[in-house]
Amino acid sequence: MKVAFQGEPGAYSEQAVFNYFGQVETQPCESFEAAFDAVNSGECESALIPIENSLAGSIHQNYDLLLRNHLHIVGEYLLRVRHCLIANPGVQKADIKKAISHPQALGQCAGYLRSHGIKAEQVYDTAGSVKMLKESGARDVAAIASHRAAELYGMQILEDGIEDNAENYTRFLAVQTEPVVHGNEAKTSIVFTLKNQPGALFKALSVFALRDIDLTKIESRPLQGKPWEYLFYIDFIGSLKDAHVEKALDHLSEYALMLRVLGSYPRFRG
Amino acid sequence: MKVAFQGEPGAYSEQAVFNYFGQVETQPCESFEAAFDAVNSGECESALIPIENSLAGSIHQNYDLLLRNHLHIVGEYLLRVRHCLIANPGVQKADIKKAISHPQALGQCAGYLRSHGIKAEQVYDTAGSVKMLKESGARDVAAIASHRAAELYGMQILEDGIEDNAENYTRFLAVQTEPVVHGNEAKTSIVFTLKNQPGALFKALSVFALRDIDLTKIESRPLQGKPWEYLFYIDFIGSLKDAHVEKALDHLSEYALMLRVLGSYPRFRG
Repeated sequence: MKVAFQGEPGAYSEQAVFNYFGQVETQPCESFEAAFDAVNSGECESALIPIENSLAGSIHQNYDLLLRNHLHIVGEYLLRVRHCLIANPGVQKADIKKAISHPQALGQCAGYLRSHGIKAEQVYDTAGSVKMLKESGARDVAAIASHRAAELYGMQILEDGIEDNAENYTRFLAVQTEPVVHGNEAKTSIVFTLKNQPGALFKALSVFALRDIDLTKIESRPLQGKPWEYLFYIDFIGSLKDAHVEKALDHLSEYALMLRVLGSYPRFRG
Repeated sequence: MKVAFQGEPGAYSEQAVFNYFGQVETQPCESFEAAFDAVNSGECESALIPIENSLAGSIHQNYDLLLRNHLHIVGEYLLRVRHCLIANPGVQKADIKKAISHPQALGQCAGYLRSHGIKAEQVYDTAGSVKMLKESGARDVAAIASHRAAELYGMQILEDGIEDNAENYTRFLAVQTEPVVHGNEAKTSIVFTLKNQPGALFKALSVFALRDIDLTKIESRPLQGKPWEYLFYIDFIGSLKDAHVEKALDHLSEYALMLRVLGSYPRFRG
């Protein structure tokens, strides 16, 4: 089995692939779009895509890609993110003037960097920042990335766990071309649009509330090309195989202009 | 009057300040946090902060800053964003190999860049990218920024309006230390948290639906330090001075663990 992820070898996403799928072959991709394309083209059986982080919020681009690509969510995985301050061998922590990493990782270590007087500079990827640092040989720069990225490039970890908030989890979705409708302990993800009129969202949510269906996530996204109209993404507990879920979605389709099920998949259990 | 904005002189935010406030003094700030601080400290009477873009969605960091700072929203403004491809004088469009700009601007021109075989590189600011390009003197690099930034730095506009989607608007909020409760044609912004139980959001939205109050925006944000619990931000049509709005907020406070009014301000009319 071959699984696509966004980033360089050693990225947090690659770690999540191994934790979720076991020892599979991985396909690093330059962009999230390329990871979706790798599944569309049949090059990979699956892609594992980050969709939200407990601190930074949703990765909106991936919601858009879920909508544009006709792939199915078949599973979810929660990764605890531990950021390391990584330097070239022999460098001392006191030498570090600047840290390079992905903007989200820099943001999650902003307090640490500020308190140590280290400036932040954005690059495209966490593991990529370790590779760049190794190539440059710089001795006043550190990268922020995973333990695994430091090992992969033979670099030194100056400090482990420098994230400001320990409750730092990233939720990943496994996507593939064929749907797998899971029964027990399932979560279902849907996307829909509504008429732009008072009470529209209230009516939409009533289809779940009237059937005691527990929502785990609601997200609104502007509709491209229609300023200030919104798409809604909802995750709820239940499977497409459950009769009350089927009735709720039937009911929702009375109000929704567009409704799509993105997947019905096993709920993550840590 | 002195108004803070995030970015370099020539930033889209500075253009929005002049359009909204007229000829005031402006204070460029390195970060959104610094723009809020400029108002907190009394250095500026107001800050104008981007909160959402019709294509890219919400600027989540600024929702967090609205919550952390005790400032009040006193107005909103909608800016039509037109991106320019900007180069050093004398450079031809065919020479351009790479474009530098803020990640959001690069994302909004991704189709244009792809079709012209131009690589994208992220820098911290749109107008800042023009300044950097001027300083470097590079002849195979273009910056993506506003018309105004090109003029300010005496640079050449190779093409105007290179954004992929013309429906590109950014919504700004004016914040200051004292609230101004506006009456007619008002919009109100609130933030609240709910108990994590089935139907909680449905009950919360019922307080608006039962009174025919029109929601213009709903946004969920993870609660820092409490993974997968959410803050809700809602904008609705109406003023704190309206009796039915007062009753709706009273009703909401029966369900909400925390409820704060961020401001009641004149609705933007183009």
